[in-house]
Amino acid sequence: MGYLEREGQLNMTVVDNDKAAGNGVNVQALLDAREVLKGAPEAAQFTWRASSKWQYGVHSTTKIQNFFGLGQEQQHKTESVFDADHPEVFAAEDSAITPIEYLLVGLAGCLTAGVAAVAQNREIQLRSVSATVEGQMDVRGILGIDSDVRNGFSGTTVTYNIDADATPDEIKALVAQSQKRSAVYDVITNPTDVRVEVV
Amino acid sequence: MGYLEREGQLNMTVVDNDKAAGNGVNVQALLDAREVLKGAPEAAQFTWRASSKWQYGVHSTTKIQNFFGLGQEQQHKTESVFDADHPEVFAAEDSAITPIEYLLVGLAGCLTAGVAAVAQNREIQLRSVSATVEGQMDVRGILGIDSDVRNGFSGTTVTYNIDADATPDEIKALVAQSQKRSAVYDVITNPTDVRVEVV
Repeated sequence: MGYLEREGQLNMTVVDNDKAAGNGVNVQALLDAREVLKGAPEAAQFTWRASSKWQYGVHSTTKIQNFFGLGQEQQHKTESVFDADHPEVFAAEDSAITPIEYLLVGLAGCLTAGVAAVAQNREIQLRSVSATVEGQMDVRGILGIDSDVRNGFSGTTVTYNIDADATPDEIKALVAQSQKRSAVYDVITNPTDVRVEVV
Repeated sequence: MGYLEREGQLNMTVVDNDKAAGNGVNVQALLDAREVLKGAPEAAQFTWRASSKWQYGVHSTTKIQNFFGLGQEQQHKTESVFDADHPEVFAAEDSAITPIEYLLVGLAGCLTAGVAAVAQNREIQLRSVSATVEGQMDVRGILGIDSDVRNGFSGTTVTYNIDADATPDEIKALVAQSQKRSAVYDVITNPTDVRVEVV
């Protein structure tokens, strides 16, 4: 495991704080990681994990802390806990957001992280980035009314409002590059295999 | 709007608490909604929404409260706030989970809600339902190392452990039916259009 300073940690250069743009993204570390992982594809294999428990009705609680990557078990600093439920218009308790709304959180978070990272790499100073995300859904799908209506989103839109030291075209290019490298955008726009098992 | 008791609310039967199974899902209301929405496709059009703000680095905060459905604006009882960041192995602050992990929360929540609803409809008493969800990812995709490696999950697995008053085959059938009607499972396994704009 010569590509690792010690097992499970990449040997990455400290960020250069004198760079023109200070968006808080350690781009040099990411560029270093790219070089290291080019020669170590096995270290690039990550597994993200969640464990979920049914509460009552359609309410569930999901916990996230551990994941696997860089050849070993890793963990977030703290455990995060998320509840999901259905709203009152679906005759439920509305004790939390609906599961499908979590996809909007992931989509916004992933594209925005990408905008910040690409801006840092291009030395563009961001001042503010906000996004409105919408997912359209015809609930006749999940209710089983019409088999021609899909269960999920019929479409999704993300609208960015960005204030930065850059031209409108440069700002659009930031967002386009973020889309090109976004993990969540990829999962939503392309098919992903999901294997469901009962043990 | 004769299908609505008053605008924005479905006229639904009160749940029968004497049913054999008490999983807390108001299945009668959902069956009633199905009948009502059969004749009112415009009321079945929902829009889920989130608004997201960049904080610093790859850290963003997303808020959810309002949505549209049953022909009018709706809202959750409370506003929910979610942070996303990257872990320290990506040279970030790890102040929250990674955006792609939110997809696992949504997938678990949606399938588990379905298991509870289908169990209620089939009068199967659930005692406990837990799920482990995993998403595999080769980070050479998002790092731009190899254009043949996708950015998102290479695969996802959901493993259920269910204790219920039912045979193993009946339990497997609950999970299979939940998959068939799951909005999040549909979005992850099938392509969904995402339009990204800058205003």
